[in-house]
Amino acid sequence: MGLAAAAALPAAGIASPSAHAVGESGKVDRESADRYGGFAPLTIREQGGFAVGGSVITTPGAFDPRNPTNPAGQTLHGDHARVFYQVPMRPRKLPLVLWHGYKQSGVGWGTTPDGREGFQTIFLRRRFAVYTLDQPRRGSAGQTTVSTTTDASTSDQWFYNQFRFGLWPDLYPGGQFPKGEEAREQFFRSMLPDTGPIDGEVLANSVSALFDQIGQGILVTHSHAGGFGWDATMKNRKIKAVVALEPGSGFVFPEGEVPDPMPSSAGTLAGEAVPLKEFRRLTEVPIVVYYGDNIPTKPTDIAGRDNWRVRLAMARLFVDAINRHGGDATLVHLPSIGITGNTHFLFSDLNNVQIADQISYFLDKKGLA
Amino acid sequence: MGLAAAAALPAAGIASPSAHAVGESGKVDRESADRYGGFAPLTIREQGGFAVGGSVITTPGAFDPRNPTNPAGQTLHGDHARVFYQVPMRPRKLPLVLWHGYKQSGVGWGTTPDGREGFQTIFLRRRFAVYTLDQPRRGSAGQTTVSTTTDASTSDQWFYNQFRFGLWPDLYPGGQFPKGEEAREQFFRSMLPDTGPIDGEVLANSVSALFDQIGQGILVTHSHAGGFGWDATMKNRKIKAVVALEPGSGFVFPEGEVPDPMPSSAGTLAGEAVPLKEFRRLTEVPIVVYYGDNIPTKPTDIAGRDNWRVRLAMARLFVDAINRHGGDATLVHLPSIGITGNTHFLFSDLNNVQIADQISYFLDKKGLA
Repeated sequence: MGLAAAAALPAAGIASPSAHAVGESGKVDRESADRYGGFAPLTIREQGGFAVGGSVITTPGAFDPRNPTNPAGQTLHGDHARVFYQVPMRPRKLPLVLWHGYKQSGVGWGTTPDGREGFQTIFLRRRFAVYTLDQPRRGSAGQTTVSTTTDASTSDQWFYNQFRFGLWPDLYPGGQFPKGEEAREQFFRSMLPDTGPIDGEVLANSVSALFDQIGQGILVTHSHAGGFGWDATMKNRKIKAVVALEPGSGFVFPEGEVPDPMPSSAGTLAGEAVPLKEFRRLTEVPIVVYYGDNIPTKPTDIAGRDNWRVRLAMARLFVDAINRHGGDATLVHLPSIGITGNTHFLFSDLNNVQIADQISYFLDKKGLA
Repeated sequence: MGLAAAAALPAAGIASPSAHAVGESGKVDRESADRYGGFAPLTIREQGGFAVGGSVITTPGAFDPRNPTNPAGQTLHGDHARVFYQVPMRPRKLPLVLWHGYKQSGVGWGTTPDGREGFQTIFLRRRFAVYTLDQPRRGSAGQTTVSTTTDASTSDQWFYNQFRFGLWPDLYPGGQFPKGEEAREQFFRSMLPDTGPIDGEVLANSVSALFDQIGQGILVTHSHAGGFGWDATMKNRKIKAVVALEPGSGFVFPEGEVPDPMPSSAGTLAGEAVPLKEFRRLTEVPIVVYYGDNIPTKPTDIAGRDNWRVRLAMARLFVDAINRHGGDATLVHLPSIGITGNTHFLFSDLNNVQIADQISYFLDKKGLA
């Protein structure tokens, strides 16, 4: 595919060093790796966290410190995002903001299910300041102003297939999900219920507020956050580029240009209409969209596969629409450039350093690194 | 108080350097602080995260990949703790495990409400490997196997008083909670609802499992975790010391030695009986308990104050019971050694470096640092 070939680093172009042996320069630091048991030390100028965005609700009445469990006259702060950040020595100009997907949280960027380094640390080593967030009503940002019943239904096998680790209980042959019971269990234990209703406006507003606070940066989204990420990008000009890893929903198109809905055995995927003026914001920043392997080209009744057939197809139309309006969007279907076996979780797959190399190459090519 | 005087570093004993200017040695690193805008760089050998403990539930039946939203034949992994860890270069022998309190999560150890460094980073600078955890059914460990309705009731003012920042809307004069709207808001936004019922057995088991995984270490508890921390310590001999910051519940005593319940305007506090054999475990490791300021000595109808009157009183009896059975427990009521104004959140108060100095001194004195 022409676009992908232009924007992507050939799979065989460089050897992917192990995450543990990549030093600050992005090059293998053999001496450090040897001295510290395979880990080159990380040098961090600053790390911390904060809440951003959100709302406040108030119960009418007067607060009585003699009866403090009465909600009258009291407030509740909720619906914010929570951010963890690390800034390396001599950071690059633009930080990365990493936004997790459905049933996930910021910690998914930290470590892979088999204990390797995730994008948070990999890109820190490459001298990016890295901000990982928990979106409102998830994880450490769980304080919602609208209560819900937490989901405790059994669903591991559903998501195992949906995330294309394989077809339960098997892994895809040649797939990039780490083998073994322990990695599987760690993955399942990274899943989280919502603590309140998902509200796209609340989500996009919180991430827009984050960029208002930290200034210009690069937004990296995964899956469910893909669509909310377009919303945030249309809201806030401080988002200077978007890297979307397997966006799963919320593909926007200019009014009058929305493609036909796409039925699949996992449900029907519909594009969303936005005013052309808003859509044009997406033509003003470089955008790259990555999808992994084992996505069927023909309909199938295995829902966890068919889901991605229509998403990849809709993403192609989305990228075409941006470029038709003068933008700079690229879709990289990884198998087409020789990178095979990737699951829905590109950033924690066995070859996540190779995926990071693709992103580094893209950002470098666009003058953003 | 004799015990406190023996185990505590006098308040005026050393100047507390700012957290930002403390280098790896624990000494002020003036050159680094100047060069990096007040921050001495952190050098980290390894960082990451994982889930530990927990359970698995299964719905009877067969999983059908053509109908994946049907829970039949599917599992759910939940009730684990989630851990974030950072290991400095040349770490001390014993790591610290930091366990948050009620309505809190691991991120509360990371950063103070006014953006200073929390215990996570302060002790990392002092060359401890630091593990912060989210307890089961909270924050990033939110996947519960027992669902609940998330609490979205207005309660900020209740907890403002309960945590002894002041008497709403005022701060205590000379208090250690940071001034200003922004810090207050950041604090409120650190609060979290439970995603499932609090189950002491589940909590203590997960922390015991953590020590089984990482080996010997020092457990630091805050507030609600205090009681569960005694439970974990009685379960697991790898816990080599306990630092309890304002433990709020779950004071255990040998059967037949439980003191009378203590009524207060915040409710009645009762001790808990455990077999002497289990209690003796608490006599085998050094234990230090810290309480802050503005705790009344006489009953009051302000619930947020009276709550701590009985807790401090019960903690004294608890420490006495341990020492009576041959143990090594110390209670430090900070005002009695000249450290004034501390809230319930000793570890993020304005003088949190001074509190960390107390803990460092204690650990050093016990040969644990």
